[in-house]
Amino acid sequence: MTLAIRLEEYEARRTALGERLAERGLAGAVLFDTHHVSYYTGFAFIPTERPIAFALAADGRGGMLVPRLEVEHARANAAVQEVAHYDEYPGDRHPLHALLELLEALSVRGAIGADDDGYPWMFGYRGPALSELAGAAVTRIADAVENQMAIKSTAELALLRESCKWGNLAHTLLQRYTHPGVSETEVENRASNEATYAMLDAIGPIYRGQSLWYSGAVAGYRGQIGRNAAIPHALPNNIVFQAGDVLVTGATAPVWGYHSELERTMVIGPPSDEQKRLFEHMVALQDLAIDTIRPGVSCAEVDRRVRAYYDEHGLWENWRHHVGHAIGLRYHEGPFLDRGDETEIRPGMVFTVEPGLYAPGVGGFRHSDTIAVTDDGVEWLTYYPRDLESLTLPV
Amino acid sequence: MTLAIRLEEYEARRTALGERLAERGLAGAVLFDTHHVSYYTGFAFIPTERPIAFALAADGRGGMLVPRLEVEHARANAAVQEVAHYDEYPGDRHPLHALLELLEALSVRGAIGADDDGYPWMFGYRGPALSELAGAAVTRIADAVENQMAIKSTAELALLRESCKWGNLAHTLLQRYTHPGVSETEVENRASNEATYAMLDAIGPIYRGQSLWYSGAVAGYRGQIGRNAAIPHALPNNIVFQAGDVLVTGATAPVWGYHSELERTMVIGPPSDEQKRLFEHMVALQDLAIDTIRPGVSCAEVDRRVRAYYDEHGLWENWRHHVGHAIGLRYHEGPFLDRGDETEIRPGMVFTVEPGLYAPGVGGFRHSDTIAVTDDGVEWLTYYPRDLESLTLPV
Repeated sequence: MTLAIRLEEYEARRTALGERLAERGLAGAVLFDTHHVSYYTGFAFIPTERPIAFALAADGRGGMLVPRLEVEHARANAAVQEVAHYDEYPGDRHPLHALLELLEALSVRGAIGADDDGYPWMFGYRGPALSELAGAAVTRIADAVENQMAIKSTAELALLRESCKWGNLAHTLLQRYTHPGVSETEVENRASNEATYAMLDAIGPIYRGQSLWYSGAVAGYRGQIGRNAAIPHALPNNIVFQAGDVLVTGATAPVWGYHSELERTMVIGPPSDEQKRLFEHMVALQDLAIDTIRPGVSCAEVDRRVRAYYDEHGLWENWRHHVGHAIGLRYHEGPFLDRGDETEIRPGMVFTVEPGLYAPGVGGFRHSDTIAVTDDGVEWLTYYPRDLESLTLPV
Repeated sequence: MTLAIRLEEYEARRTALGERLAERGLAGAVLFDTHHVSYYTGFAFIPTERPIAFALAADGRGGMLVPRLEVEHARANAAVQEVAHYDEYPGDRHPLHALLELLEALSVRGAIGADDDGYPWMFGYRGPALSELAGAAVTRIADAVENQMAIKSTAELALLRESCKWGNLAHTLLQRYTHPGVSETEVENRASNEATYAMLDAIGPIYRGQSLWYSGAVAGYRGQIGRNAAIPHALPNNIVFQAGDVLVTGATAPVWGYHSELERTMVIGPPSDEQKRLFEHMVALQDLAIDTIRPGVSCAEVDRRVRAYYDEHGLWENWRHHVGHAIGLRYHEGPFLDRGDETEIRPGMVFTVEPGLYAPGVGGFRHSDTIAVTDDGVEWLTYYPRDLESLTLPV
């Protein structure tokens, strides 16, 4: 038994991208982004200054470029025909020369596509543009890659549901252990660890997280507690909980690289009238967004309908961000539920839906649910209670 | 009492970069990289599809570009004169238009520098090149930024020492809790949590991690256990320890954005002769590297001397990577202790020194210590025992 994506699915992904390349008159493509690489090869790695790339011929054959220290790992885990390597970065000659040899080995000659014109300059890496190196124009094909990644397969949806289950457990424990006088860090660690142990014991030794960001199930507050909850993406701060705090949570679990997102607004002790008012508006905003999502509607339309609600109810001073984003191998992906994104919603897309209200001195109010678009509407992948009564903690 | 970098130091950093810009005939610069931004402003954030940038005029005045949801956070935490914002990404007009207005507000007119020609395409972000947007050539100045970041100040060295202390605690607990029959995840979480609680209670509520990668002290194995230890950067796998395993550890703790690195090779039960042989060669390689490091020597020379040892002792089949890298706000930075990096070693540079030996079927052998270059040699910032006896675990 495995939950991992099967080899045939990687092959089908490569074939589909190869067809897009051929349509654009490209002989092949080079992808540098770690999630683009893992999407087509199953090879999960942590990007550093040592360049790693996936090269694809338009006929669907693939190869990996890795540093010497990743060769065994790539041979064992990357579903590709060729593994080329260089000794080290910066090394005696620039690693990207080995990429040219890989393209040659795949018989990729002529115009190529790439997600970026060279390996990104990170962690001290410096190097030439791919176009300069290959002496040819390089066409940006990140759009083709990301459009493909946006439509989840049956196997991907199964992984996202699995992620939701363990995020739900972590969140349940987070809520259970939170009370006045204990600290953020203590509660987060306890809930996350216990959920992780349960997940590891339940799925067993086949479990692979394969995430850049998380090594197990996790639930926490990211500092969005009390007055800080008005700052949507605060960094952690080890705050001690107090009665009257408004809390904005976040929970997920990486499973074979896939991430879901569950966020809830909770209140410690009886909520004030103002807290109630903002909470109920927030739930209404989320309902409105989810009711709007279905195949054929644009992403922008979802945001526009939500924005109309802010207009109607005079809530603009509490607005901070758009409705949501796609999610999968990355915890944020395009398309965006934003008035600037006219992408048509299609079956298989998976979105977080998370309109928020923020009031300095009162708190932040945001639920986030992960939903999949079906043939005629949506399937909720997250399933944690959303009502204020369920989310009010005893003092 | 605070351990944070002071406002005057951020100001001095900006002034120094401004001088470099003026020398190159540039009116100002734009930096997109999250660590470049935090180095000059103190503003720590998690990069997403919403572009964030720091703009500097050659006279030292600075400004931030942030999305609406980061405005309060930036006003409270970024040591800059101007905070410009856009509503949302993608939004009704592209966010980078607000960057042009920020440059105008700082009176930056004419040639500019940048770490990258536009915000990197990550998490689904797409946007124009800065050069296209500004209608002007953009000079790459990542080298000037990274050369400046490579020389650590007294305050930065104090933070790195603080990081080493909590990494040392986490590692001590990791070693104490590891024994046959328990699992990797269980030991890592217990050691990391206890070290984190101690750190939070010792430093108190002023503590800020400000790291993209770690939320507290951490020690673990990253799957480098037993035969897997031969793969230098394995991903975690929840392995159960067995007698005879060779273990490669890693420990650190983020303090106000700074990271140290401590890694040790440990063996469960009496080491075999082959394990002993490789362990002793590894320690000799590390000694040789550290003895070579002093001001005036090149980074390449350190790697060349280590490589000569591999030659002399017939160890090339066990080689996988160069000697080490600089470290600070990022856990990998340039310059690199690599034969391809001719950078001259200077006082204030901080390196990890970590030559390794890897033998499939036997294990991986690598210690990593973090050392600071002084006026006439090195100061060891990490101080965990390095000898085989201390690192042999009871069965």
